[in-house]
Order: sequence, then structure tokens, then C-alpha cells
Amino acid sequence: MLESLKQAVWEANMDLPKYGLVTFTWGNVSGIDRESGLVAIKPSGVPYEELRPEQMVIVDLEGNVVEGNLRPSSDTPTHVALYRAFESIGGIVHTHSPWATSWAQAGRAIPALGTTHGDYFYGEIPCTRAMTEAEIKGAYELETGNVIIETFRTRGIDPAAVPAVLVNSHAPFVWGKDPHNAVHNAVVVEEVAKMGLHTFALNPGVQPMDQHLLDRHYLRKHGKNAYYGQK
Amino acid sequence: MLESLKQAVWEANMDLPKYGLVTFTWGNVSGIDRESGLVAIKPSGVPYEELRPEQMVIVDLEGNVVEGNLRPSSDTPTHVALYRAFESIGGIVHTHSPWATSWAQAGRAIPALGTTHGDYFYGEIPCTRAMTEAEIKGAYELETGNVIIETFRTRGIDPAAVPAVLVNSHAPFVWGKDPHNAVHNAVVVEEVAKMGLHTFALNPGVQPMDQHLLDRHYLRKHGKNAYYGQK
Amino acid sequence: MLESLKQAVWEANMDLPKYGLVTFTWGNVSGIDRESGLVAIKPSGVPYEELRPEQMVIVDLEGNVVEGNLRPSSDTPTHVALYRAFESIGGIVHTHSPWATSWAQAGRAIPALGTTHGDYFYGEIPCTRAMTEAEIKGAYELETGNVIIETFRTRGIDPAAVPAVLVNSHAPFVWGKDPHNAVHNAVVVEEVAKMGLHTFALNPGVQPMDQHLLDRHYLRKHGKNAYYGQK
Amino acid sequence: MLESLKQAVWEANMDLPKYGLVTFTWGNVSGIDRESGLVAIKPSGVPYEELRPEQMVIVDLEGNVVEGNLRPSSDTPTHVALYRAFESIGGIVHTHSPWATSWAQAGRAIPALGTTHGDYFYGEIPCTRAMTEAEIKGAYELETGNVIIETFRTRGIDPAAVPAVLVNSHAPFVWGKDPHNAVHNAVVVEEVAKMGLHTFALNPGVQPMDQHLLDRHYLRKHGKNAYYGQK
Repeated sequence: MLESLKQAVWEANMDLPKYGLVTFTWGNVSGIDRESGLVAIKPSGVPYEELRPEQMVIVDLEGNVVEGNLRPSSDTPTHVALYRAFESIGGIVHTHSPWATSWAQAGRAIPALGTTHGDYFYGEIPCTRAMTEAEIKGAYELETGNVIIETFRTRGIDPAAVPAVLVNSHAPFVWGKDPHNAVHNAVVVEEVAKMGLHTFALNPGVQPMDQHLLDRHYLRKHGKNAYYGQK
Repeated sequence: MLESLKQAVWEANMDLPKYGLVTFTWGNVSGIDRESGLVAIKPSGVPYEELRPEQMVIVDLEGNVVEGNLRPSSDTPTHVALYRAFESIGGIVHTHSPWATSWAQAGRAIPALGTTHGDYFYGEIPCTRAMTEAEIKGAYELETGNVIIETFRTRGIDPAAVPAVLVNSHAPFVWGKDPHNAVHNAVVVEEVAKMGLHTFALNPGVQPMDQHLLDRHYLRKHGKNAYYGQK
Repeated sequence: MLESLKQAVWEANMDLPKYGLVTFTWGNVSGIDRESGLVAIKPSGVPYEELRPEQMVIVDLEGNVVEGNLRPSSDTPTHVALYRAFESIGGIVHTHSPWATSWAQAGRAIPALGTTHGDYFYGEIPCTRAMTEAEIKGAYELETGNVIIETFRTRGIDPAAVPAVLVNSHAPFVWGKDPHNAVHNAVVVEEVAKMGLHTFALNPGVQPMDQHLLDRHYLRKHGKNAYYGQK
Repeated sequence: MLESLKQAVWEANMDLPKYGLVTFTWGNVSGIDRESGLVAIKPSGVPYEELRPEQMVIVDLEGNVVEGNLRPSSDTPTHVALYRAFESIGGIVHTHSPWATSWAQAGRAIPALGTTHGDYFYGEIPCTRAMTEAEIKGAYELETGNVIIETFRTRGIDPAAVPAVLVNSHAPFVWGKDPHNAVHNAVVVEEVAKMGLHTFALNPGVQPMDQHLLDRHYLRKHGKNAYYGQK
């Protein structure tokens, strides 16, 4: 069932340690088959060195296990909430990658400070509000998805143009058109988080980059007038 | 004698350079067999690349050598003091891992700043008070154990729920249910120490994480209602 | 056509990931054959692991493709502008190497703070002014070259003695006598950017190094009285 | 001639890239045969990957080449000045290792902030005064040695107990009983430089460690009452 999706999700999961984004099992990647509405996701707590493609768990958009003998990631309700709300996305990655997690712990959005950011994110990477006691004590992982969705909706941010968020006191969630692309974006988030921290160290009063420069870089890589890369 | 314990302690010691926690010989791991009350520990000053399982030294809970031709780690009196006082622990690791050691040198506890911390430590990782002249000039390594024990007892911290401490002006001691788990926790201490420093750089006034969020994350991984990982 | 130049440019491009200067495809190296006025440059957006020497694109000094089936780097107009203006240079590298990019994002020149800097750069590595809306919306990559050239001309900096610049809100461009030398200098820029940031952290009021010391170090490696290295 | 010394000096030089202490050719190690008063030192500017034991240059204590076809390191006059002044030392290493160099550029001594420091250095690692115009324009490398010697003599520091110095606006020189030991100490300098910077970030008002604790750690590894390691 969905063998090629499970393979792609497995490969994307295996890229997390390769890119230095995870310690131990602190990360997970999922991918969705939009036609069937089914999601493949990493099983919970399985070490990467033991992970095999056939262990990917298939769940529906409510998070119910449809196929697989292992428990899906404990973050599954967050993933499916995002797939339900953000219809343009095809893969999601969650890590505790250290630079981005430091911004999340600081409760700060990562502003667009330069063209590296602008090449991938059309504006700041937002940080959610702190979750309430009721949200934390309730369906916590689902509510984590909800506070992400609220962040994008109330601030009018397009999740296709800003494919990442920092969950306050927690860590980043990042997405993309497919699982591979989501991991690619997670690498970029970590890189801009690192450079952003150093930029503020060098210039505590630094302002976000010029909007025209952000437009230029984002649009030379995205949309119908993009001219970066091969056709 | 205690061959499987010596093997486990050796493997845990060999994990220290693998995880980047030690420079040269600056670290040691021990493990205890609670039934016999005997401890296996790394010999003093032996380079990791030459270390063999049969070189692990067996000492009793007073630190007397019971088996082995090499001197045990000079920190042995600290290890056995902790095994005597903290009955729930089965393995101890001491390193000078650089991020955690920076906090120890700064004389600061590592507060719980996010869910990475909360997944492993049920509250801040304490830093001991400075040791007195009498303690330093006396049975120094034993007194190091005593000041750790004092820190947990006077502050009412459960060493099973917060399996790490920073010794003031020195470095971390970390423990766990066995030597492997102690090293696992030492990796986490280093990671939260790194992220914590960066969090304060980004937000000097940051407060410890919400207690409800700490409860949620700690308890989803620990105790009878844990739901992280496979059954 | 220009096979040895294409080989040299390819090798220099392949050195970027080897030295940790690039993430994904965020970098490019070119080299010029001054006799013919032709430039070999990396094709746009091709992953380093797939890059082959014969894929290097040959362009003229206006940036027109003379040979090659792939699009040249989107930064080609910047490269050729620099080759036209700086006649002493033979190779150019552009990366988003993280330490140097942090200085660029902060809008700060990297001052000469020590002999490591002085061994390679005869004065501070300048940061350009921010580009104007018209420049960004116009021939952006060409204008990037123009603002670099303006920086050196208006400040009276010799591009042979200071073979690097930070483009404001963007990243470094670095050059040298050939592509290999340009990459060598890019490694040095990253190293002095890293050390410079840490120097300011330790001493926020630090002043540029003594001019006599800068003279001494630069001139013991450059010019007719150089005495570093083998004859 | 002095084949075993040349071999030892070559091995110690090759350890510099292994421990991450050098970029390109930015480092050199020497060793002395006290009986003959001859020094073996790395040739100037030769890449580590090409370096062979027989290329080590033999010089006398005035820096005159006694054997070898290559030029000795341009820092040779510094090395021999230190061997003449500090009779207890047998090996010297100079690098631009980034953390220690950042302290040198900041013009700050590295204070003893914890036991890692105290295990190797019996007090702060001093930073020299800035060199004068006359020193820089004169016999610069010899004067670099002289300002190091002045630092130890005027401040009453024993070079055997504090085997390292930071040359202001430049980088560290580190020594030991032999070339291997000098490199070992250079690794420690880099580690305490890194941790010291982070310690100040966490606690800008941190004071040097307790003198009793420094005594205890230094003396448990050095002198007749040392009890660390195997007999």
C-alpha cells in the first residue's frame, strides 16, 4: 500500500541524521497521498539506524492507523491537522534542530535578514503564541497543529510561501511539496536560524531586509517568472 | 567477574568519543551491579583508543578495588558516593563536554527552556554551590559527591527525575538506569546546554518554560501514562 | 574549448562543499581566460554531487553563452562585471558561507583584527551599501556587480590587495588570481569572519589591528620582499 | 641526523590538522634535542598533505639552518628564542586555532575558569602587550619571542606551569616537554578558549576559579603527589 510514498518518507527520514538535524530519535517526517487522503509517517521512537521503509505507518487524515504494526509518531495529530488545513503541502518534517529550536525557546520569529532567507521564505518564519493550559492538558498534539494553523490564518501568512513555523518553547515544524522538499526546507531553516543569531550578535538593532530585495530573491526562484536553475 | 557489566561499562565509555563528549581522557563511565553492590569503572587516564573491556576496574561501594590491575578513575569516590545516596541509579558518566561545562564554569543551573529539556529532565539541571576550602583540601572527590547529594537533598530534587548536575567551576555528572542510559542523558545535557546558551543570547530575559508544558512532555515519556515510543 | 579552464573551474567548485562553504547549490565559482576574454562558470542550480567538468558553461564578458547546453549561474552578470572592472583577477567565488554571510546581513565590514586577516587582506573586507529599489528591480545581478565595483572605487580599495567583499543583506563575493586561489581566499574570509565575531564578543570595543603589524604580515606574504613559503 | 626528533616533529605537525587546529598551512611544530642544542622544525608553507618527515629542517639555537633543503618556518626565530629562554621545554607549537586566536585578537588573557583549565595550566594563559612599531619593523619574529619571554618574566609566570601564551593581535604559541606534548597542550588551549568565551556569555561577571580548587586540580596531575593516571 502506497509503497512509493513509504519509500519517499523513509528516505526523507533518513536524511535527517545525514543533515545533522536530529539527535537520537528527535524528529519525524511524513508525506501525504492527496488522492487517497492517506499519510505515511515515521513510527514513534524507532532509532534511525534501524528504520526500514516498510515500517512507515499509514494513517488517515484523522490520524487513525490504516496500515502498520508500529505506533505512528506521537506527533501524528499535529501532522494530519496541518495536512487538513494546508492543502498545498505534501510533506512535513519536525525536528529539534538546535539553532531553530533556540529561536523557538526564545519565543522569537526568525526575521528575513538576507537573501538566503528570501530564496526560500517569503517573509519571517513565525513563532506561535504560547499554548494555554487547556490546550496542553487536552489533545496536546492536535492543539499544537491548531496553534500553528491559527498563527498562519490570523497573521495572513500563506503556508506555501512560508513553509515553516517555530512552536513556542518547543521546536520547528517545516513542510514542502513532498517529504524530500520538506527536509530541504528544514535544512534551510536551521541555516537561517544560525546566521540570524550571529547577525543579531553583530548588529543588535538590525532590521529585516529590504522588501524589494526579498521580492526579487523569492521570485527569482518561485512562480512563473523564476529564472534560477535549469528549465 | 561481572563480565557483562564490564562489557556494558566499556561500551558506554567508548560512546563518549563517538558522541563528541570527550577530549583526550576527560571522561569516565561506571555501572553498578546492585545485587553484589559492586561497581565497574574506567581505569584512570587510559586513552579511549586503547581501552579494552577487561581493563574495567571493579570496586566496592567504598571505592576499594576488588578486581583489576589498573587504578580506577580518580573520580571513583564521587561515583560510589552517588551510588550509595541515589539508590535508583545504575550508571554514571562524568565528562567535560564543552557546552555543559561552560554552564558549570558560569555557576548557573540550566533552566528548562523547552520541550527537549522536558522530555528528559523534570526541571532545571542544578549547579552545586562552590566547594569550601576544607572540602577541596580534604577528600576532594568524595566531597564532590557529597556536594552533589546535598544539592539534590536540600532542594528536594529527585535524582531519578533530574538525572544530571553541574559541579560548580567543574563540569557535569550525569546518570541513568544503566551505563548506556547515563551516556544517552549526557548527550541530552550537552544539547540543552548548547541550545540554552543560544536561547539566552536571543532573549536575555527568557523565563523557564510553562510548568504544564514541562509536565506534559516529561510525562508523555516517563511513568505509567507514557505514550511515546513502542510498547 | 578551454578544457583546462573548465577543469580548473570544476575543481574549484567541487572544493566548496569540501571546505564546508556551501549548503545545497548555494555557491558558484568562475574563472577567466584573459587572452580570449571568455569565462567558465558553474551551471545554475546543479547539485555538486552531479556536477561534471564538461557542464561548465562558457560565456563572454557580456554574459552571453558561447558554449554549453545548460544555463549559467544566475549570478553570471555579477561575475562578468567584476572581471571587466578588476583586470587583475582570474577567478571569482560566491557562496553563502554562514559566518561571512552573518556579517553581510549585519551590514558590517570585517575589520582587520589580527595577523590571520593581515596575511591575506590588506585592510578591512568592505560591506557594500544597500542596493536601491531601482537597482534591485532592474538588472539586479549586474547591479550587484556595480555596487561592488563602486565600493572599491569610491573607497580607493585595491581589489588585488583586498580580494573579497560582503554584499549588504546578501553574502560574500571573493576572488583571486585563479579559481583555486579564489576558493582559498573564500576559506580565509569565512575563518576571519568567525574569529572576528568571537573577538567582538570578548571585547566589544576592540579596535582594528596596528597598521604596522598589518603591513608586516601582508608584506611578508605578498610582493617582492615576501619571505613566507618556499622560493 | 636527529632522525627520531624529525619523526616526532613530523608526527606532531601532522596532528595539527587531525585535531582541527589548522587551516591550510597556518601552523608549525618544532622540537629540540637539548644535548646538541639543535631544533627540528616544519618547513615554511608546505601543505600538510605533502609533508614528509625528512623535510623537517634542522636549525641551531640562533635559527641558522644546519640541515635541510627547504626554508624553515618563517616563525623559526620565535621558536629558538623560546628554547633559549625557557630551558625546561622540549617542543613548541604555533597555530591560528580559531577560539584561542579570538582571545588573542581581543587582547585578553584566558582566565582559569574551571577544572579543565586547572588540570593543565596553573593560572591564566597570558596575553602579551601589543608590540611596538620598532619591534614590528625590526626582527619581527625574534621580537615576537622576546615579548613572550618578557610577559613571563615580568609577571613571574613559570613557563613549565603555564605552557601557553597568546600573542596580542596574533595567535597562540604553546609548548610542552616534547613536540607531542606541546600539541596536546594546544588542543587544551583551544578547548578552554572555547569554553571560556561561552562562560563569559553566560556570566559576564564571572571570576577566576577558587585558588584552592586550581591548586587541587593542577597538583593532582602534576608534581610528586600527582595521583591521576597509571603509575
